[in-house]
Amino acid sequence: MAFTEYTKEVWKGSVITSPLPPVLVSCGTVEQPNVLTVAWTGIICTQPPVTYISLRPERFSYDIIKKSGEFVINLPTEELVKAIDLCGVKSGRDTDKFALTGLKAAPSSELSAPLIVQSPVNIECRVREIMQFGTHDMFIADILKVNAAKELLDSKGRLALEKAGLLAYAHGDYFALGKKLGSFGYSVKKKTKSKNSKRKG
Amino acid sequence: MAFTEYTKEVWKGSVITSPLPPVLVSCGTVEQPNVLTVAWTGIICTQPPVTYISLRPERFSYDIIKKSGEFVINLPTEELVKAIDLCGVKSGRDTDKFALTGLKAAPSSELSAPLIVQSPVNIECRVREIMQFGTHDMFIADILKVNAAKELLDSKGRLALEKAGLLAYAHGDYFALGKKLGSFGYSVKKKTKSKNSKRKG
Repeated sequence: MAFTEYTKEVWKGSVITSPLPPVLVSCGTVEQPNVLTVAWTGIICTQPPVTYISLRPERFSYDIIKKSGEFVINLPTEELVKAIDLCGVKSGRDTDKFALTGLKAAPSSELSAPLIVQSPVNIECRVREIMQFGTHDMFIADILKVNAAKELLDSKGRLALEKAGLLAYAHGDYFALGKKLGSFGYSVKKKTKSKNSKRKG
Repeated sequence: MAFTEYTKEVWKGSVITSPLPPVLVSCGTVEQPNVLTVAWTGIICTQPPVTYISLRPERFSYDIIKKSGEFVINLPTEELVKAIDLCGVKSGRDTDKFALTGLKAAPSSELSAPLIVQSPVNIECRVREIMQFGTHDMFIADILKVNAAKELLDSKGRLALEKAGLLAYAHGDYFALGKKLGSFGYSVKKKTKSKNSKRKG
């Protein structure tokens, strides 16, 4: 394999990790919901399943989540890109983001915090620890439940997430996911020849 | 705005957050480098810039990073997808992943840990804390420096990361980034009419 080789310019440290998921985080209650967009999220541990979101203390949702100890991570899709951007720049202090965007809050399974109906996957989280770092505090949380879109389940009950039209965030820009290039482990899988193949060589 | 509304099936908690960056993490030294693929990474704090990677203690790189307190996060590209998959399934204990994949290690600016030449962005990290959660330990780290590909700098010195062909990981699959759909804040930007536009209405 021969790849492009890059020469480098050295910059001071900055938060350039990409691509990240610009998730919708919902909190509060079904009756009094709030939602904001967060790209500072990811997986901390597989088993038990642990995640985090990092928030600026000045965000309206910060106190709501700190007090309730609950939030829902709603995975982002292409279709929702404008709503996602709006929920990142507007504040629930002075804007009803649900009325503004058309997003709908509905009950989750274990939490008082609602899920977003138009997101294909909603991840119910309970805060276990808050850590301070500077501009952002990290809310480390257990993943209690996952709500998966029935519309995306295939005949075997597997979630066909590749059909969800997921959205990525990279260096200030939003991107649709493009071509699927492989699956985990594909580089070491033995190729099985199709018995009915007519092609040779 | 009217969006698709999904009905949900409730599952137990799992690590379904997507899309995530399947980064190459390099460690060790230029003379004795190792590299592994990690998708459990993200940004914790903007200022100071803080990141993390989560590793299983049984991974070969775990002890190397724990001892040195250093690693480099190398952003993933389409071109490297097979190398990235190999570095996720093979172990440095019994495989020279550099010989196997053609990836090259080169000196970073502040660390003994090397960077990967064929990655367009290399993020130099120093561990500040290790936290245990279960299958994975989280290495929280300060971002000391960013190495940016000169080949991707535009005439204003801005990194045109959208030209890097970044790679995303979602629910077991690798995807190229597709169409750019907008930039942060685009939903509230006032549209400026082009003075030279000949189109009307």
